[in-house]
Amino acid sequence: AFRDEFFELHPYDQAQFYEKVTPDIRQIIYQYLSPEELAEIFQALELDDDEYVEFLNEMDINYAATMLSEMNSDDAVDVLNELDDDERDSYLNLMDDETVEEISELMQYENYTAGAIMTTEYVAINENSTTRSAMHILRNEAPTAETIYYLFVINMKKQLVGVLSLRDLIVADDDVLIRDVMNERVVSVHVKDDQEEVAQIMRDYNFLALPVIDDQQELLGIITVDDIIDVIDEEAEDDYSKLAGISDFDHADQGPFTAAKKRLPWLVMLLFLGMITASLMAQFEDTLDAVAILAIFIPLISGTSGNSGTQALAVAVRGLATKEAGDEESKLKLLLRELSTGMVMGVLCAVVVTGIVYFWKGELVIGMLVGAAMCCSIIVATLAGALIPLLMHRIGVDPAVASGPFITTLNDITSILIYLGLATVFIL
Amino acid sequence: AFRDEFFELHPYDQAQFYEKVTPDIRQIIYQYLSPEELAEIFQALELDDDEYVEFLNEMDINYAATMLSEMNSDDAVDVLNELDDDERDSYLNLMDDETVEEISELMQYENYTAGAIMTTEYVAINENSTTRSAMHILRNEAPTAETIYYLFVINMKKQLVGVLSLRDLIVADDDVLIRDVMNERVVSVHVKDDQEEVAQIMRDYNFLALPVIDDQQELLGIITVDDIIDVIDEEAEDDYSKLAGISDFDHADQGPFTAAKKRLPWLVMLLFLGMITASLMAQFEDTLDAVAILAIFIPLISGTSGNSGTQALAVAVRGLATKEAGDEESKLKLLLRELSTGMVMGVLCAVVVTGIVYFWKGELVIGMLVGAAMCCSIIVATLAGALIPLLMHRIGVDPAVASGPFITTLNDITSILIYLGLATVFIL
Ligand SMILES: [Mg+2]
Ligand SMILES: [Mg+2]
Ligand SMILES: [Mg+2]
Ligand SMILES: [Mg+2]
Ligand SMILES: [Mg+2]
Ligand SMILES: [Mg+2]
Ligand SMILES: [Mg+2]
Ligand SMILES: [Mg+2]
Ligand SMILES: [Mg+2]
Ligand SMILES: [Mg+2]
Ligand SMILES: [Mg+2]
Ligand SMILES: [Mg+2]
Ligand SMILES: [Mg+2]
Repeated sequence: AFRDEFFELHPYDQAQFYEKVTPDIRQIIYQYLSPEELAEIFQALELDDDEYVEFLNEMDINYAATMLSEMNSDDAVDVLNELDDDERDSYLNLMDDETVEEISELMQYENYTAGAIMTTEYVAINENSTTRSAMHILRNEAPTAETIYYLFVINMKKQLVGVLSLRDLIVADDDVLIRDVMNERVVSVHVKDDQEEVAQIMRDYNFLALPVIDDQQELLGIITVDDIIDVIDEEAEDDYSKLAGISDFDHADQGPFTAAKKRLPWLVMLLFLGMITASLMAQFEDTLDAVAILAIFIPLISGTSGNSGTQALAVAVRGLATKEAGDEESKLKLLLRELSTGMVMGVLCAVVVTGIVYFWKGELVIGMLVGAAMCCSIIVATLAGALIPLLMHRIGVDPAVASGPFITTLNDITSILIYLGLATVFIL
Repeated sequence: AFRDEFFELHPYDQAQFYEKVTPDIRQIIYQYLSPEELAEIFQALELDDDEYVEFLNEMDINYAATMLSEMNSDDAVDVLNELDDDERDSYLNLMDDETVEEISELMQYENYTAGAIMTTEYVAINENSTTRSAMHILRNEAPTAETIYYLFVINMKKQLVGVLSLRDLIVADDDVLIRDVMNERVVSVHVKDDQEEVAQIMRDYNFLALPVIDDQQELLGIITVDDIIDVIDEEAEDDYSKLAGISDFDHADQGPFTAAKKRLPWLVMLLFLGMITASLMAQFEDTLDAVAILAIFIPLISGTSGNSGTQALAVAVRGLATKEAGDEESKLKLLLRELSTGMVMGVLCAVVVTGIVYFWKGELVIGMLVGAAMCCSIIVATLAGALIPLLMHRIGVDPAVASGPFITTLNDITSILIYLGLATVFIL
């Protein structure tokens, strides 16, 4: 009865249950479930890297190896990639040749490419088959294929020549050749394409799966929409963490030392960069001594311009990601727009701050100086916020690594230089 | 020949073509294409809001109204929502009653809820039908339904009682009752659920579509995975822009004044908040006068702790979004972890900065003061970075609005207070 109840649950709920029970109960699960049945659950797990290893070690090694070979190949590869070489080999040694070959081929593709997220459980059919035999093949493949909703059509050389959706197949007549009903304009991706490009295509065309080919147009696998959702999440989280100046997110169960280790590299690097602000101010000691009131506006000026720099940075990074700033012309347009935006915001903030300083301290000259410095700093920060990601993109670095903290630290330096420079020239 | 060529293109490519040609050529398209055919293209457009209006105005009003009623209801609603009331009514007046009713119902749901992104073009079948009649219904609905890959099973009261995938249907026998082969554990969402929760379910369960029900379990519509991808994109962009302190992204074709208008509210608000830094420093004028060297380390201390605050903020916002910081216990754990992380990073940065000040300026006491202030500021900033989003979440505000610029501005105030406070107590 438990067995029946359990199998009525969706694999995700089964996986949640499996993940949360004690190791003792998992031992019972291993006894009651066949490796095929556990494979379905294992596929639906969302674990931290080391937990996969922990769970595999709970199982008999033969059971684990059979389960791994029953998983969808893309998910099996994800798990195997978490193991060290010896462990991985010990599982591969227990699998049949065909599975080992499939898995080894998938493991060779670099992370973040189409090859790394594709699966080999797709339905392919020869262009010279009939719709009747296609339906027959689909029925047979239904239990194991990742999706049966697209049939990928190949020729004798295994080259991808078309696609037929199950939607089209069920309305087609029974005895037609596939080549006559298939869609020849099949959109595919290359096995070495970046996963972000694949996600973009899936998003634009609203496909449920995309075929992956090599240089010879040979069909190698498919990428399904559920895995693309994970890619989109991963990439969004990556951009978000970079904007905040962290290399990658701490998980709830990590201790403070692990968390600190992930954040310190950026923090200490920026601390050294920030030392320049101190030495700059030391250079201007005479100016600061002569007009003591000057120092009190430094955090305000550098803070406000730092904020405008962060805003411009985010706009530029998104513009590059969405291809809105794709070609040279639109990049130049973006820079000019940011320059003008910086000027508009700079002038407005300058007027506000000059007014405040004048009414608060009664110092018109200092107020105008603070205003002028703020205006210039905002313009420089806004322009730099847009320019730096564009330059990074140019030299092939992910523009998202230009984080907010980096921009504000850089901006502390330029704004202090502008402010104290202007003060030295105009007041002393 | 052009017609044939054109229709072999995928709707997305047709839409790209349609969008990019001159209005003259679009007039030719309106002549050659039926409203039904154009509906397919219009659905695949990704335009700015006002462009939809522009394109609709190019068409004959009867043609446009027919086209709108042929579109998938969710996409038609999206377009109609861009029009002003009069325009919308003039199109609705030309549509048949059934379509008007469908569209009016969808328009009543609030933005960002399941109801706002669902479509009514789904396939529903009574639990007492047979698999043979189900297949027959699917064949008929195939040309218009958004997805035919899930059949939603209802009872006499139109309540959702199960689901059957086309995958299961094609392997089932021909003359079985649907109720005997359907999956009774159907996962559904409520029409008023937040779109982010819907996205989370789609992500976890890897569904291609999710049924939407009301309080009486009545089936109202479905949400398809392609629209969920758009939701995920939209929400990620929203979080990203908030972290950078902008309300929403400027598009490439917007001028500097529009861009400035979007960024100035935050900037000016933070400028006023930043004024507190200036008045704080004015309060400590005696301390700053007495030990002039103090001022030069202010940007370094506030910059470094601001950076650590931004890091903690991003971790907390993501923790809330991914439900890792879901219940009270894990929120407390997060706060304690951030406190400890802040202490680890604070002590380490303090040691580094004390060393630098000592070796650079030969000032051990000042160095220790700077170190102590930096340590305290980092701890406060890290804790505040985690606490503020948690508090916002508690009072029902989107924690993502606690932006990096807000945290750094707040932190400028606390770090100056800590630094000059310590200096006044220990040095004077
Ligand atoms: Mg899978
Ligand atoms: Mg993979
Ligand atoms: Mg990438
Ligand atoms: Mg889409
Ligand atoms: Mg997969
Ligand atoms: Mg990226
Ligand atoms: Mg909508
Ligand atoms: Mg929301
Ligand atoms: Mg998923
Ligand atoms: Mg839709
Ligand atoms: Mg759509
Ligand atoms: Mg959100
Ligand atoms: Mg700052």
